[in-house]
Amino acid sequence: MLILVTNDDGVRSPGLRALALALGEIGDVVVVAPDRNRSAVGHALTLDQPLRAEEIKTDVFAVDGTPTDCVNLGIHGLLSQRPDLVVSGINGGLNVGDDISYSGTVCAALEATLMGLPAFAISLDTSGWNKTDLSVAAQFAKKLALDIINHGLPEETFLNVNIPRGGCSGVELTTQGKRKYSETVIVKEDPRGRKYYWIGGTEAGFVDLSGSDCNAVQRGFISVTPVRTNMTHEKSYIVMQQKLFDCLKDNA
Amino acid sequence: MLILVTNDDGVRSPGLRALALALGEIGDVVVVAPDRNRSAVGHALTLDQPLRAEEIKTDVFAVDGTPTDCVNLGIHGLLSQRPDLVVSGINGGLNVGDDISYSGTVCAALEATLMGLPAFAISLDTSGWNKTDLSVAAQFAKKLALDIINHGLPEETFLNVNIPRGGCSGVELTTQGKRKYSETVIVKEDPRGRKYYWIGGTEAGFVDLSGSDCNAVQRGFISVTPVRTNMTHEKSYIVMQQKLFDCLKDNA
Amino acid sequence: MLILVTNDDGVRSPGLRALALALGEIGDVVVVAPDRNRSAVGHALTLDQPLRAEEIKTDVFAVDGTPTDCVNLGIHGLLSQRPDLVVSGINGGLNVGDDISYSGTVCAALEATLMGLPAFAISLDTSGWNKTDLSVAAQFAKKLALDIINHGLPEETFLNVNIPRGGCSGVELTTQGKRKYSETVIVKEDPRGRKYYWIGGTEAGFVDLSGSDCNAVQRGFISVTPVRTNMTHEKSYIVMQQKLFDCLKDNA
Amino acid sequence: MLILVTNDDGVRSPGLRALALALGEIGDVVVVAPDRNRSAVGHALTLDQPLRAEEIKTDVFAVDGTPTDCVNLGIHGLLSQRPDLVVSGINGGLNVGDDISYSGTVCAALEATLMGLPAFAISLDTSGWNKTDLSVAAQFAKKLALDIINHGLPEETFLNVNIPRGGCSGVELTTQGKRKYSETVIVKEDPRGRKYYWIGGTEAGFVDLSGSDCNAVQRGFISVTPVRTNMTHEKSYIVMQQKLFDCLKDNA
Repeated sequence: MLILVTNDDGVRSPGLRALALALGEIGDVVVVAPDRNRSAVGHALTLDQPLRAEEIKTDVFAVDGTPTDCVNLGIHGLLSQRPDLVVSGINGGLNVGDDISYSGTVCAALEATLMGLPAFAISLDTSGWNKTDLSVAAQFAKKLALDIINHGLPEETFLNVNIPRGGCSGVELTTQGKRKYSETVIVKEDPRGRKYYWIGGTEAGFVDLSGSDCNAVQRGFISVTPVRTNMTHEKSYIVMQQKLFDCLKDNA
Repeated sequence: MLILVTNDDGVRSPGLRALALALGEIGDVVVVAPDRNRSAVGHALTLDQPLRAEEIKTDVFAVDGTPTDCVNLGIHGLLSQRPDLVVSGINGGLNVGDDISYSGTVCAALEATLMGLPAFAISLDTSGWNKTDLSVAAQFAKKLALDIINHGLPEETFLNVNIPRGGCSGVELTTQGKRKYSETVIVKEDPRGRKYYWIGGTEAGFVDLSGSDCNAVQRGFISVTPVRTNMTHEKSYIVMQQKLFDCLKDNA
Repeated sequence: MLILVTNDDGVRSPGLRALALALGEIGDVVVVAPDRNRSAVGHALTLDQPLRAEEIKTDVFAVDGTPTDCVNLGIHGLLSQRPDLVVSGINGGLNVGDDISYSGTVCAALEATLMGLPAFAISLDTSGWNKTDLSVAAQFAKKLALDIINHGLPEETFLNVNIPRGGCSGVELTTQGKRKYSETVIVKEDPRGRKYYWIGGTEAGFVDLSGSDCNAVQRGFISVTPVRTNMTHEKSYIVMQQKLFDCLKDNA
Repeated sequence: MLILVTNDDGVRSPGLRALALALGEIGDVVVVAPDRNRSAVGHALTLDQPLRAEEIKTDVFAVDGTPTDCVNLGIHGLLSQRPDLVVSGINGGLNVGDDISYSGTVCAALEATLMGLPAFAISLDTSGWNKTDLSVAAQFAKKLALDIINHGLPEETFLNVNIPRGGCSGVELTTQGKRKYSETVIVKEDPRGRKYYWIGGTEAGFVDLSGSDCNAVQRGFISVTPVRTNMTHEKSYIVMQQKLFDCLKDNA
């Protein structure tokens, strides 16, 4: 079994190392990951510039691109055969609620799914890579990988996994929750008198949604959310059919 | 009415200009757009570096960030009040099928929706900005903007609009289709003997899905797809509840 | 006569436009300049990534590289024949004293000289592109260009020209002076609690050196400094011959 | 004695490690180096964006900037006291002839000199970090550092050192030579049909100049060139005084 491992924290992240090590117990692992931190790059794909891939040690490639680039380049350019599974993480910090479309780690799993491969993303609530928590995450990744290999995943679906810090009380199948963000932009002035802006993004907790990933992790459970690649809003589609939108009536 | 306009082709794109001009007929328009082409950056958000915003002419800001940055910074930092609508485009090239999660243009509308604002993205099948086609797109944007202002949009939903080239036969409410990609990575060698890789991404047509955006545009119709911000796969959630995943049974 | 014009403020700078216009009166001008501001990039050359050149209007190329890249690519890739002269500027802000090795504008002239072409860099003491000052600079550039075409420049030498603001009292042949910098780095914390650093670089005046570019401009004169491409310090070479450096005696 | 060590190949380069180790035998070493390869960035200084510095291990800082940034930030922001010496290298590849103004490694030594500190740059003719050669280079760096500490350097001067491969026959005080470059730009087309350009820069040997760094290294000698920070061309200054430049006669 061949497993492609990537992340968005960069090829030297302890989370990636722990993940690759654990998965190495059940298959052959090839790491293709960004050469530096590429957090919050979403599903960005590099089309305007070519990419470089340096094999920094056997079966570990550092790529000067995004996590999505790494999956794409790994599958079509670097791996000798098509992998059986793609795993992205272990991310330093949760990817729950609306965070997931920003997350390079999650979008790497999305990319793999678009290419027809089973995949999951895994993230840990951490600020300093606590060893016990990291081990919980890595061991869970290994078990989940085996489950996926044995039972498969539903079509056009990948899993987004989040691990709480400080030990976990169990595992929950969850839905995507909703983070609250403090909506601020911070304005400053540089030493040459020119303004610059920081996007705030400080977390202000999450909306209390029963069954959500946010709630599960908050209560000390590992959350496992099935995520779709098709973004059509079916219910809104039906609502829209009944809307009185003039422009939707323009048929020649 | 205040309308925030952005795109991913950059602040100097003819598509953006045509859109801002058309929307200027029904409201006050402020443009906040990338200072250069930022296509295919997905939902990337710049958190590690601050942003610059230069007002290159009245109510036109060039930002050294992604489309998502532009929407975020526009709403929280540059506009004097919260806009009533966010419109992203007119993109040079379609954004249909699985393309939409890569598209900076589409993800700008996603960002606005996450912030609770009605939004749509609009893209045109073009390679050289045909004037008639551009005018069709701009006029449709204006009509859709009025419809949204009058009737609102369903919750957690934005619209992804695609305009065919060479005149249109009508408008269709659509679902997200599926592009086929030729799965290739091209390997070359630079003048100093080092390998580099181009992600292929050449289009190989689309899967024939009745009711999809791809099919509508192919047949000469404008497609309007309602897109969701919540990426939970509800059907797969139910499937997963019945899966025999060992790791989902681990509850302390 | 074919003149290649570049700068480091970017292809849309008013300084570049004024320069190209003035030089257009005495020859054919092709502009090859960075697509955005690339100030303070020194003699940086892009070897790891390929470059793009977009002809944004006839004989005006925007390149996604440094000023040095622009000169190199212009001469070897974009121009139909070898130019007779390369002029870089008009830079917004002086390039005097030790600034010149940091300056993308000055290093563009250095690059041209290394390629065997006569060249000069021209900079204006400005913060808002005063029209009269800009016109003084552009007219001086035209006259100097004619002088160079007529009389040539000494070998391995280019000229670094600086124009004072508010009218000029004359022209002086000068030597490179010495700026004083306030030696500071400013430490701040981003919204996510991570430190970042601004390099200070606020000017603290200049050393009073008779005959220097700093002094000339300060007194309202245009300064013209002959700059070398060979950086050997000949006097120090002689001093070093007499130094008691042990390691210089190691001859097998 | 406190020694600041930097380079342009990045903080993880074997050349940097060997240098830091050797200099650690004669003083306290703090490494402040780019977080990735930043070759050929010249004297580029980052003024538009702030910098990050991560202490990846004790007294080893990875900075997301240029070598010049590293020296500036190291001296004014990271080191607890002003260093006694700045050493840049060991660069992978020679920096001789006209290369030196492009070289980030050499310009780091230039930056230190502008700040009034003794400095040298050291480069090795290598393609795969031969251990013996690397050791020769590191040992020479140590001896030169001691010489500089004991005897000082002439004002406004730093040393540019180049080490031949395959053992050395001795040490020579040299002048800056002249590389020949094959003047080419290579044009290609990306998978989407858009042109891109590689700056050629393939070496075509060097001009045969007695006493030059190129010649010394070619003959198997270590070259030591005293390099100036002041770029005035004194001889050309005198020539220019006698030139019939009309524009130099314009004195109000």
